[in-house]
Amino acid sequence: MAQIRELLESYRAAVRAKDVDAFCALYDEDVVLFDMWGEWSYRGLPAWRRNVEQWFGSLGDELVGVDFDELEVRGPVAHMLVRYSGLSAEGEELRALWSRMTWVVVDGLVIHEHSSSPASFETGKVMLSRT
Amino acid sequence: MAQIRELLESYRAAVRAKDVDAFCALYDEDVVLFDMWGEWSYRGLPAWRRNVEQWFGSLGDELVGVDFDELEVRGPVAHMLVRYSGLSAEGEELRALWSRMTWVVVDGLVIHEHSSSPASFETGKVMLSRT
Repeated sequence: MAQIRELLESYRAAVRAKDVDAFCALYDEDVVLFDMWGEWSYRGLPAWRRNVEQWFGSLGDELVGVDFDELEVRGPVAHMLVRYSGLSAEGEELRALWSRMTWVVVDGLVIHEHSSSPASFETGKVMLSRT
Repeated sequence: MAQIRELLESYRAAVRAKDVDAFCALYDEDVVLFDMWGEWSYRGLPAWRRNVEQWFGSLGDELVGVDFDELEVRGPVAHMLVRYSGLSAEGEELRALWSRMTWVVVDGLVIHEHSSSPASFETGKVMLSRT
């Protein structure tokens, strides 16, 4: 649990700093990622790194805040809800969205991440706020 | 790996038979589920069971086929792509959708399931076919 909390703190700090190297240092070379947006899977850290570069590169002078809720850890697996907030350069919150995240951590590195939000049956759209 | 394959075969058979008891027997009493549709999480088997009853009960005389692809297992964690097909009572395929599934299995029971499809940035809708 302590190790997971430390990794999550590093995740939060790397996102806030838009630090691609620090962010990618959390993941195993052979990570398999089921990300919430756009792709069915990312296989291997180079593919994931390209996506992270795009994400951080797209932010301009905005920042991203990360908060975790309902964290549960059992053995090598952690699952939680994650709130990403879009912040102005001055730190003012502009928008926010929630997602769910599952992490599998082996030897201190994330070997599998699954991130998503639930979809509405009626609209087929993902729900980005918790009700 | 053999145990996971056996559990997945039981999952497939229970869905095909619309057998709520056999389906729920795969899950731990304290399972936490991040399902693809409608809810942020299901906590505990009774909550998940109610959803399964609704799912199977909504099918009329249709059947659901399940196929797995890209299965990978590491320790207690399995992740894969899943194809659900809607079948007529005569077994003719009417429609199909893909999703991604992560399973955490402890003592032969699923203690965590995360199921989703990636969302399109442009439309916010989940993608249900693989490209």
